[in-house]
Amino acid sequence: MNRYYICALMLVISASADTEYQVAFSAGLLNSVALGKGETLCFDHTFLNIGHAYDLNTGIFTCPQNGIYTFQMSALTQRGREAWLDLTKNHKLVVSAWGRTDYATAANSVILQLTKGDTISVKARRHTTYVYGRRNGVYTTLSGFLVAPSYI
Amino acid sequence: MNRYYICALMLVISASADTEYQVAFSAGLLNSVALGKGETLCFDHTFLNIGHAYDLNTGIFTCPQNGIYTFQMSALTQRGREAWLDLTKNHKLVVSAWGRTDYATAANSVILQLTKGDTISVKARRHTTYVYGRRNGVYTTLSGFLVAPSYI
Amino acid sequence: MNRYYICALMLVISASADTEYQVAFSAGLLNSVALGKGETLCFDHTFLNIGHAYDLNTGIFTCPQNGIYTFQMSALTQRGREAWLDLTKNHKLVVSAWGRTDYATAANSVILQLTKGDTISVKARRHTTYVYGRRNGVYTTLSGFLVAPSYI
Repeated sequence: MNRYYICALMLVISASADTEYQVAFSAGLLNSVALGKGETLCFDHTFLNIGHAYDLNTGIFTCPQNGIYTFQMSALTQRGREAWLDLTKNHKLVVSAWGRTDYATAANSVILQLTKGDTISVKARRHTTYVYGRRNGVYTTLSGFLVAPSYI
Repeated sequence: MNRYYICALMLVISASADTEYQVAFSAGLLNSVALGKGETLCFDHTFLNIGHAYDLNTGIFTCPQNGIYTFQMSALTQRGREAWLDLTKNHKLVVSAWGRTDYATAANSVILQLTKGDTISVKARRHTTYVYGRRNGVYTTLSGFLVAPSYI
Repeated sequence: MNRYYICALMLVISASADTEYQVAFSAGLLNSVALGKGETLCFDHTFLNIGHAYDLNTGIFTCPQNGIYTFQMSALTQRGREAWLDLTKNHKLVVSAWGRTDYATAANSVILQLTKGDTISVKARRHTTYVYGRRNGVYTTLSGFLVAPSYI
């Protein structure tokens, strides 16, 4: 019976290794905001925040587990305003999205290998950036999840 | 040998638990459509429909397994027309996308925790919405998949 | 002890089956390019290329493992230029994205079941297509990853 229990224990460990590090968040903007150059876009609502890795107070996602993560950002410009946004890793530019006309969609996505403690956030690029949000109109979002954990 | 078979059986169960609930769909529009306020956008083609959870007749994805799901919608406006679309959960607004100029991309994405039986669909928002589709030009799509199942 | 080792071996096989075929890539454009009709968009940078399935020389992703894959493309048009792009499988049209105004986002996504050896690439559609890229402004990207492997 001893060996049986060892096997069962290993199965439990194996199964939990697959699931315990699930990380996923999806944040949206319920209110329009104006951002100065380099300012972080703080989303004001999370649809989902498994692992509590996205912080609504700072607008920063902090990686809780080494692995491959996918991120998507979408934004809607305000009338007569531009939205010029950078998705940053550790506050350094990775990919960007730009909307120049009225109520235009600016969107981009990227997949990154992250190490525990790495941060992801969306920042205004050069000029003042205006992005649209309403309680009944969430056009501006940032979502991400762990595609595969790394144990090395 | 008895214990060996128990272990083998547990492994098979463990392996199948990982894979049997795979859910993924990707739907596109092969023909342009006009939608009245609140009307559901029925895509007319699926590139993929693992689990048969997306219904082409109703335009509704019905969640077959509790878990975390990611969804992405993209649309192209028609010439001189607006496309104003809501991604809804159980027919209630979650996130939106808006295209106002000729042949503009309207896109958004979200990650949600769903319970078996929850529905996801894309609906026209306020005004009549026109979205573009051609057999050789699929610009308007809705895709989603199960990121991680929940067994609770 | 013999049975214990068999179980342990099966666990290792089971665990490696889950992880060894991870495939993910994320490519971006650091320089603006002009493409003739049907020409493949060769991205000039990879943020990630797990499995080395995306080839920067040819602009082609070659599927290394049967399974379900998700793909996302985003592009930014140049000033006064159009971007009209097709995501292709084995050089045949799947979904498209179109940007017509200055610095407009053209984006789309799709999920596909691929067989080992299938190729995915982004091609210019009809007219000459101009897409924007800068070392400090990566608006044009193609990303994809293996959602779930198929072993049949």
